[in-house]
Amino acid sequence: MGVLDLRLGYEKNRFPITKFGNDKNVMKIEVLTTGDELMSGLTQDGNFQWAGENLTSLGFDVAYHTTVGDDLLILKSAFNTAKSRADAVIVTGGLGPTPDDLTIEAASDFFNVGLELSQASLDMMAERFRKINREVSETNMKQVYLPQGCKVLLNKWGTAPGFSYEIENTIFFFLPGVPKEFRAMMEEYIIPELKKRNPQMKKSCMRLVKTFGLPESEVAQKLEGVEREHVKLGYRAHSREIHLRVSTFADSSSEAQLLMDEFLTDIHALLGQYVFTTEGKMLEEVVGELLKQNNMTLATAESCTGGLLSHRITNIPGSTSYFLEGVVSYSNEAKVKILGVPMELIEAHGAVSAPVVEAMAKGVRHLSGSDLGIGISGVAGPGGGTIEKPVGIVYIGLDSKTKGTLSRKFQFHGTREEIKLVSVLKALDMIRQSLLNNV
Amino acid sequence: MGVLDLRLGYEKNRFPITKFGNDKNVMKIEVLTTGDELMSGLTQDGNFQWAGENLTSLGFDVAYHTTVGDDLLILKSAFNTAKSRADAVIVTGGLGPTPDDLTIEAASDFFNVGLELSQASLDMMAERFRKINREVSETNMKQVYLPQGCKVLLNKWGTAPGFSYEIENTIFFFLPGVPKEFRAMMEEYIIPELKKRNPQMKKSCMRLVKTFGLPESEVAQKLEGVEREHVKLGYRAHSREIHLRVSTFADSSSEAQLLMDEFLTDIHALLGQYVFTTEGKMLEEVVGELLKQNNMTLATAESCTGGLLSHRITNIPGSTSYFLEGVVSYSNEAKVKILGVPMELIEAHGAVSAPVVEAMAKGVRHLSGSDLGIGISGVAGPGGGTIEKPVGIVYIGLDSKTKGTLSRKFQFHGTREEIKLVSVLKALDMIRQSLLNNV
Repeated sequence: MGVLDLRLGYEKNRFPITKFGNDKNVMKIEVLTTGDELMSGLTQDGNFQWAGENLTSLGFDVAYHTTVGDDLLILKSAFNTAKSRADAVIVTGGLGPTPDDLTIEAASDFFNVGLELSQASLDMMAERFRKINREVSETNMKQVYLPQGCKVLLNKWGTAPGFSYEIENTIFFFLPGVPKEFRAMMEEYIIPELKKRNPQMKKSCMRLVKTFGLPESEVAQKLEGVEREHVKLGYRAHSREIHLRVSTFADSSSEAQLLMDEFLTDIHALLGQYVFTTEGKMLEEVVGELLKQNNMTLATAESCTGGLLSHRITNIPGSTSYFLEGVVSYSNEAKVKILGVPMELIEAHGAVSAPVVEAMAKGVRHLSGSDLGIGISGVAGPGGGTIEKPVGIVYIGLDSKTKGTLSRKFQFHGTREEIKLVSVLKALDMIRQSLLNNV
Repeated sequence: MGVLDLRLGYEKNRFPITKFGNDKNVMKIEVLTTGDELMSGLTQDGNFQWAGENLTSLGFDVAYHTTVGDDLLILKSAFNTAKSRADAVIVTGGLGPTPDDLTIEAASDFFNVGLELSQASLDMMAERFRKINREVSETNMKQVYLPQGCKVLLNKWGTAPGFSYEIENTIFFFLPGVPKEFRAMMEEYIIPELKKRNPQMKKSCMRLVKTFGLPESEVAQKLEGVEREHVKLGYRAHSREIHLRVSTFADSSSEAQLLMDEFLTDIHALLGQYVFTTEGKMLEEVVGELLKQNNMTLATAESCTGGLLSHRITNIPGSTSYFLEGVVSYSNEAKVKILGVPMELIEAHGAVSAPVVEAMAKGVRHLSGSDLGIGISGVAGPGGGTIEKPVGIVYIGLDSKTKGTLSRKFQFHGTREEIKLVSVLKALDMIRQSLLNNV
């Protein structure tokens, strides 16, 4: 993303996945993603990430992931390797109509069978095209001729049908590479089929818990000893948040749910206020819900974060009911003229100071008539730092109609965009804490 | 990213990589990334993406990419598969000090050699630790015992040394998984070594060209026939921008550069104003440079984009010299009170209308005293749409001290965040066009 990409790339998790809950009797799965655009790094392999996260959380053993380009010989060689080491192979991509879509041809060669028309797929495609006033072209016909003897997986989300084929105790699934279609077909066909083929597998329950305010090592330390049988816990550092993917396993769904409730109670007891959701919500979503519950409105005055806070808040549908306005007072003149921050205050303390962010918060609250006002000022860098006010210093002020004004000082580290991001997360968290009556 | 992730996942490029410039005599490369956190989808494999993009652009044949978890047997089996099909294997990850770092052990087993101390690596690690007042622990010692007979690749960017080992005409490279270290060592050791081993390979020159305003199919259509020998062209749809990665190949670097200059001249002739950079810059960076060149300042008034425009503009270091202030006038009251938009105008035309965005642009320009003012108002959805003003309708107004006021109406499609993003890109592009005197 050009906008803001703080994904830290490959970062070794200190406690990647506990071994509890793993069942070594389940089948070995290989995911085989195909496409020149993946090999050349031009496209990220989001399908594998989705499959890895979902299958692992369900307790499956995703043992191999392979990516190859659009090359007939290499595709067949990859099928062969996968057959030799995996019980189930999920192949994605290469089912399209263009000449570089070779998966069906490679599969029919590899399974040594011819192609036959899937009438059901053709009917579905024709119906789909009729709706957008399009004819099924000869090029598209290529997509509905599938290997003889395969099981067709109808695609209700796009044009290319998928299929499965079993050979010498290995089941191959072929799915389109379009993420929306891949995910839908994984959920509709592949995951149920894999579960059926692993009858000894337990029922599972999954939740995404998110925390803010503690580094990963401290989250792990606080959670020491929480691990237990039939519960799987995965850590992921997501910009400055730490996410916990929790899966529980039991003989029945209700037992798995009970185990989850117990585990989440313990997580809450150990991490307290640092947990902002157990349902995978975003921080700004949680803040929005709290504002709505309290029937309160918000306005923002941003300097160093440049509008990122209001952008995050307004990403939530319906935020118009609690977010009134934002001011990005980048210049001192804007702070004085729009927000009414006294110039003497800026001259006495500097624009990056507690009195100024408190005045910004008050100013924007009065300007908008909101219940809460927040003010942020800091040095995002890389230039502009001084000895007293180095790069990364950020003040955040919060003014509440009922509780008065407070401010906090932070020293952050990182790039300009990282400092903007963590400032915004801290600001959102200060609003959250205030609404929870913790501040 | 929680913030904004519009990466479209796997999206099949219609013209992924032209075959020109490919040299089928170069060695086949396999990239083997390791780590449980990759298999479980908790971490994205940024290293492979980097390697794929860079090696492919240089003309190498990246034929296979495999990912496996931290398992000794599976690692060795993956080494064996790679040896059987690749001439060079780049292994990343698993060189750390913890018990789940198994790459060195797997390699020494697979090559059937013992481990020996790399004194140079130990000295380097000790020196590194001395600087941060740390002792080399026994755990860390594990990292500097490497397979006998390997070639050590000293790590100047972190603690874990890399190494290479040649076996039966296949060269294995082992690198740390930390992205910064992986990339530095790829550039310092691996790419030069691969070039040395492919002496017939030509010298290359690479550039990232970015376009905005045309869909991928139209970019491809306009560029029809531009392909030529010794030039490789890769397309990537990056949110609403289309990026072109251009590589040229020749016997000398200066010839490759000349070929690039010629090719870029043709690209410019065919795509004209749609190209906003040939040097991989961001749109807001280009806009910032144009503002500085023209000695002009900017202020923003945003409604539906909620601050994303000012956020993007202020992501650029030094934007403080040309960006004065932003107003996120989410409510009508804010539009009237802060920006001075006449309430009658809103009542007559609605907040989402040409007269209102023009008044917003003028209002914020006067408020801030800037040379340019921009106003955006629209329906980002998913709620709030009407028959006359459906979700995705967006007006953008631009007011210039010297050129007067103009506005444009757009009908965008997509999610709330996509509509916010494309509105901001259009706004940036309108500023760019105005500064280029095209408007």
